[in-house]
Amino acid sequence: MTRDMTVENVKGTKDRGPQEMLVQERVVDTIKQAFLAYGFVPLGTPALENFDVLSAKGAGGDAIKKETYNFKIAGRHLGLKYDQTVPLARYIAMNPHFVTPFKRYQYDRAWRYEDIKTGRYREFYQFDIDTVGSESMRAEAELLAAVARAIRLLGFKEFVIRINDRKLLNACMTKAGLNPKKSLDAFRAIDKLEKIGKKGVLFELIGLGIDERTAKKLLDYTGLRGNAESVLARLEKEFVNEEGFQELSRLMRFVNAYGIGKNVQLDLSIARGLDYYTGPVFEVEISDAGLGSVGSGGRYDNMIGLFLGQKIPAVGFSFGVSRIVDVLKIAGMVKEVESVTDVFVCAVNESALENAIMLSVQLRDAGLNVETDVVSKNLKKQIAYADKKQIPFIIVLGPKEIEKGIATIRDMKSGKETRAKLERIAPLLLKNK
Amino acid sequence: MTRDMTVENVKGTKDRGPQEMLVQERVVDTIKQAFLAYGFVPLGTPALENFDVLSAKGAGGDAIKKETYNFKIAGRHLGLKYDQTVPLARYIAMNPHFVTPFKRYQYDRAWRYEDIKTGRYREFYQFDIDTVGSESMRAEAELLAAVARAIRLLGFKEFVIRINDRKLLNACMTKAGLNPKKSLDAFRAIDKLEKIGKKGVLFELIGLGIDERTAKKLLDYTGLRGNAESVLARLEKEFVNEEGFQELSRLMRFVNAYGIGKNVQLDLSIARGLDYYTGPVFEVEISDAGLGSVGSGGRYDNMIGLFLGQKIPAVGFSFGVSRIVDVLKIAGMVKEVESVTDVFVCAVNESALENAIMLSVQLRDAGLNVETDVVSKNLKKQIAYADKKQIPFIIVLGPKEIEKGIATIRDMKSGKETRAKLERIAPLLLKNK
Repeated sequence: MTRDMTVENVKGTKDRGPQEMLVQERVVDTIKQAFLAYGFVPLGTPALENFDVLSAKGAGGDAIKKETYNFKIAGRHLGLKYDQTVPLARYIAMNPHFVTPFKRYQYDRAWRYEDIKTGRYREFYQFDIDTVGSESMRAEAELLAAVARAIRLLGFKEFVIRINDRKLLNACMTKAGLNPKKSLDAFRAIDKLEKIGKKGVLFELIGLGIDERTAKKLLDYTGLRGNAESVLARLEKEFVNEEGFQELSRLMRFVNAYGIGKNVQLDLSIARGLDYYTGPVFEVEISDAGLGSVGSGGRYDNMIGLFLGQKIPAVGFSFGVSRIVDVLKIAGMVKEVESVTDVFVCAVNESALENAIMLSVQLRDAGLNVETDVVSKNLKKQIAYADKKQIPFIIVLGPKEIEKGIATIRDMKSGKETRAKLERIAPLLLKNK
Repeated sequence: MTRDMTVENVKGTKDRGPQEMLVQERVVDTIKQAFLAYGFVPLGTPALENFDVLSAKGAGGDAIKKETYNFKIAGRHLGLKYDQTVPLARYIAMNPHFVTPFKRYQYDRAWRYEDIKTGRYREFYQFDIDTVGSESMRAEAELLAAVARAIRLLGFKEFVIRINDRKLLNACMTKAGLNPKKSLDAFRAIDKLEKIGKKGVLFELIGLGIDERTAKKLLDYTGLRGNAESVLARLEKEFVNEEGFQELSRLMRFVNAYGIGKNVQLDLSIARGLDYYTGPVFEVEISDAGLGSVGSGGRYDNMIGLFLGQKIPAVGFSFGVSRIVDVLKIAGMVKEVESVTDVFVCAVNESALENAIMLSVQLRDAGLNVETDVVSKNLKKQIAYADKKQIPFIIVLGPKEIEKGIATIRDMKSGKETRAKLERIAPLLLKNK
């Protein structure tokens, strides 16, 4: 045998072994349950999109265009999607006669050709929800309530939903004397506040040709954060007639009805890097032990219209699935396991094999996850396998046991052994499941 | 608003709307449950692989190499995976110290740049299981038992597992006088028997430079099919000392222990198109109403060695997920639904909105899937939405009801209305779930 190639992952991608995938699948099932409880339904869109869809003006914007995997095949310019939102907009444009509102969830991969030095992956999993066809802040509130439900079902106790509004930010920019043409660039600079600090943002803003006084005033506004009541009170005098202020006030009314008001902070530094947001924007942070952001989103009322030629309002949120898996691990909230097998049925020798298999079939039909040997291992090695795979129980079956219609169950942790009639085994093990 | 692009799917890909995705997710959950019951665990490998991995000699072979989406980015030659097996082999090569056997499942996309005139898609979903590290036919038998369990859990009553063996086919070819160098090409021709008939295959074999007498003899062998006992009895005299014959005999012993012997047919026309198979090969057909193949697989003892430089036996099976979804629909075995929402809580006017939201939160906490209006619709339109989305119950809540602490529940099918205290609603609806 020869190895004539480099056996490795594509740079920026990684394999997910069973330990990690068992956690990831639990995370995905939990989020799905929360979203179904709010009436969101699944949508599937392909990985591949035509590049002119992905690079459409008003979609992801120039920054993300540069990061899009794209290539030509048979004269067609294709790309791998960089999010679930642009394909959703394309889907709506192709299926414009949907029942309003269209509320969909989507668990899927996305790809961005990013700098991998930052520890980011170029292929990653997102779990998105979007509500299409509602201009009302009720849509935002419901979306955030569904997100909050998912976070609680995942086991997190302390989390903060940080909210801002693009329209309010625009109003702040106008008050600060900023040229509106520079607002998108300024949003992206402000979005880095957490990462590069106030000085860094100031430097970037000045780099954009914004004069220092304007930049500093902008930074004063974006320094505002706290519970909604206090922030709205501080903004009221200057901004009460602004649509952005009013949106946030209405949003808070509904947010409180959902009982998640205590988890909300208004934070004027939240800008979100993507071009397409038009109203409220949000970020969700797990605050147990400062574990950081697990997802973000916002309102994008213009993007679908770009594809459809007719304005359709929409709001969405995207969980970073791998981020949640990491956070659960760091917080010690998940037990990483090698398998979810309940019991391994050992055959002491070749002649007991058929009976071991038949017993395994019965136990599965009773609702247990069961393994038997498939490699022709001797008893000792079968037990060693069960041990390595952290299987909690083994059953030992030999000719004598078969004759008597009994078997020995061993609790692998305590070493305690119980002899039981074959038909009693399933109920005994189910009690311990 | 302008549309300056063609808003369409990439050729050979499609969107999956909520109706289809709700079925697909049920299918995936069901298959997963069956595989977990047999001790298989999930693995995640990326969509992107280095092209020299995908195109390695002994992997998919030349036919599939031509169908691989591949492109160069920043000087690297990448491709989208065309199956889950080659990435598994690469993963094993990179993680060679696994506990034997390594039993993994994987639900994922694959891409093949195929002729779309045949109705095939270029992006499709597979659900694979593979057992790595066992030479024993016990591995095949367990794999097929897990597959059979999945098929039964999906609701299919009648299915056939058609089995052949590449080694036995090789022995047939030798007996027929075929040059062994032509065996892979002959396998691919024979694999089309169902599609192009005996005459078509004969024509293809002769086209490969095989003389007519040899080709006809080959077709005689590959015409053999039936229950295992009768086929093995007919082959015994000529092939009893052949490894392929002995593998199938051993396999049947274990298959019978799993209780799936009645679902197995030996069929010497099953060859499978892929180059990498080395032993038993199988195809699973739903025979209710002749619905055809839903998956296939086989033993591939040499492929992992190619990546690792050390021989590792393996056997795998792959379900075509979209095919199963189609078959379930054609057979009328699934009800296609717009949503899985249990109840819609209507607010008769703006003032009842907060109470409607609060009630919806309570009902979700009780285990129901609940929607409320997020678009500011009037009562009539809220009810029309619930109707279009086939939501079985609505609750009507107005100021009077709120004052009295009651609400009206309407069964949308019968039109029957019930008035109940708010705290009695959840138990009432849960009974109907």
